[in-house]
Amino acid sequence: MAGETIITDVAIIGAGPTGLFAAFECGMLKLSSILIDALADIGGQCTALYPEKPIYDIPALPAVEGARLIENLAEQIEPFNIPRLLGRRVETLEGHRGGFTLGTGKGDIIHARAVIIAAGAGAFGPNRPPLEGLEAYEATGGVQYYVRRRADFADKTLVIAGGGDSALDWALSLREVARKIYLVHRRDKFRAAPESLRQLEEAVAKGEIEKITPYQLKSLKGEEGRLSGVELATLDGESRVLDADHLLAFFGLATDLGPVAQWGMDQIRSTIPVTPSSCETSLPGVFAIGDVATYPGKLKLILQGFSEAAMAVHAIYPIVNPEQALHFEYSTSKGVPDTK
Amino acid sequence: MAGETIITDVAIIGAGPTGLFAAFECGMLKLSSILIDALADIGGQCTALYPEKPIYDIPALPAVEGARLIENLAEQIEPFNIPRLLGRRVETLEGHRGGFTLGTGKGDIIHARAVIIAAGAGAFGPNRPPLEGLEAYEATGGVQYYVRRRADFADKTLVIAGGGDSALDWALSLREVARKIYLVHRRDKFRAAPESLRQLEEAVAKGEIEKITPYQLKSLKGEEGRLSGVELATLDGESRVLDADHLLAFFGLATDLGPVAQWGMDQIRSTIPVTPSSCETSLPGVFAIGDVATYPGKLKLILQGFSEAAMAVHAIYPIVNPEQALHFEYSTSKGVPDTK
Repeated sequence: MAGETIITDVAIIGAGPTGLFAAFECGMLKLSSILIDALADIGGQCTALYPEKPIYDIPALPAVEGARLIENLAEQIEPFNIPRLLGRRVETLEGHRGGFTLGTGKGDIIHARAVIIAAGAGAFGPNRPPLEGLEAYEATGGVQYYVRRRADFADKTLVIAGGGDSALDWALSLREVARKIYLVHRRDKFRAAPESLRQLEEAVAKGEIEKITPYQLKSLKGEEGRLSGVELATLDGESRVLDADHLLAFFGLATDLGPVAQWGMDQIRSTIPVTPSSCETSLPGVFAIGDVATYPGKLKLILQGFSEAAMAVHAIYPIVNPEQALHFEYSTSKGVPDTK
Repeated sequence: MAGETIITDVAIIGAGPTGLFAAFECGMLKLSSILIDALADIGGQCTALYPEKPIYDIPALPAVEGARLIENLAEQIEPFNIPRLLGRRVETLEGHRGGFTLGTGKGDIIHARAVIIAAGAGAFGPNRPPLEGLEAYEATGGVQYYVRRRADFADKTLVIAGGGDSALDWALSLREVARKIYLVHRRDKFRAAPESLRQLEEAVAKGEIEKITPYQLKSLKGEEGRLSGVELATLDGESRVLDADHLLAFFGLATDLGPVAQWGMDQIRSTIPVTPSSCETSLPGVFAIGDVATYPGKLKLILQGFSEAAMAVHAIYPIVNPEQALHFEYSTSKGVPDTK
């Protein structure tokens, strides 16, 4: 299996929003880079999991959908013609004097001066509820873990399960199209953004969402994978059955760092500790940014991933250009020159 | 002089992009806030100094003009109805048990649980060159320090002075409208983004910009404030005169923290050192973000100001709500709930 051989300044593992912005920062600092992702498309979770979901907290982009965020980032790096190796996973990383050699599962070899790991949650998949016959209902779409097109749920009766932001946000979003929404959580208290909690209370008061707590999923009702209802139970064993066309379960992502875990960096569960101001890992020359990176006080926001991308690339600049100090603090964005 | 009296969770000093985004983060976490700025309008430098200048490095907003960046941020905070006290400067800050009292120059009194200083370069003004008769040429617009409307320079001969990003970026931008552009710097080497330096070399090669180095400004030529030329000199005393309709001087901003300097926080020149992960200053409960804040490895990018705003507001949340842990790491933006 013959892959490509590529020599570059910076190998960026992961082409989600954080990886894309790292590529932009490389372009701004005139570092060459390459984007590598196991998925067949750029965008990471934004494209694969919630292309239609509005994101509210990207600065100066009020309510941008995941897919458009990625389109904008792609447009922003377009002038730099950054090569992409998609649909292949980086399996191996070897350190050498002056840099690293990475190998993908398709036989590509990348020689780079520095590495940025922007792998998000790694090879991500949903946490699936332990229910009998689940696979049959997954196959028909009776049970789903992502919303790719809101229109699929028009006029349907939905059981949405989960107690976090995804469950809440989708309940709020889908009430506009669904016939009926039950929101099921095993506790009375939801853990979500205060503003979402407020909107939920409002929607419950208006009868747009029926909140059913504290209940857990017990079994799926239906025939030949055709879902007709969901059975719930309390911890005391009290049970009830809800009509349902679909169960949407939001129990978080099962994260798996995959081969990255074998490269000798320090790890804390599925995350990689980094030095906050540079995002360098315990392996000099290897940086981690975005959801995969952790440090004290880390906020898991896309915005922080962007900020970490800027810090990592600025920290990489002197590695690639040891003879040149980076003479500018300000980007072209600022009206504040330094003429001293 | 009777001002307003206001009680709020967070007093945000400075309504530039960073302050506006801090107000947004407050809204997302259901903290009340108020924006206070010495300028009559929101937007800080983006509005006052470079409304028409494209900014390239805001994530997912390729080439956004300063004015539009501010419009977008204003739209983003609109749902939260955040009050604004504009055209007044915060003069005094007093700490009390449980919070702070701020007083403005117009007699307003603000009682807040926490304070965010997003004062940018403070009360900013241009560094002016020490040239005889300067004021007369400033009055007629012969000498200027900002570009508010590119159209003002259509078909004009311009001497642009300075060696940083602003001088370069404006030389590059105005070559499209001006008749002739001289770019004057007292050194041969410019300190600017690598990509801008590359574009400059290209423009010089094409004859679009004439680079004149190493020369300093020596005197202004003209009558009754009407500029006709600019005299330059080398350090060896060699001089030459350039025809000019306008001198645009980009020698940086004279920064002045103003009253903030009297509030007892640690300072390093015109900046305030903060703890990186929270942006808290040496005064507990007072936070600083954006250009005014400094810490090891700080990058002076608008993006970093946004990121610091998020960190500061998350750090303020438990101050305002000591009984509640902030139960979410993820914003509504993320498809990754925590249902544990």
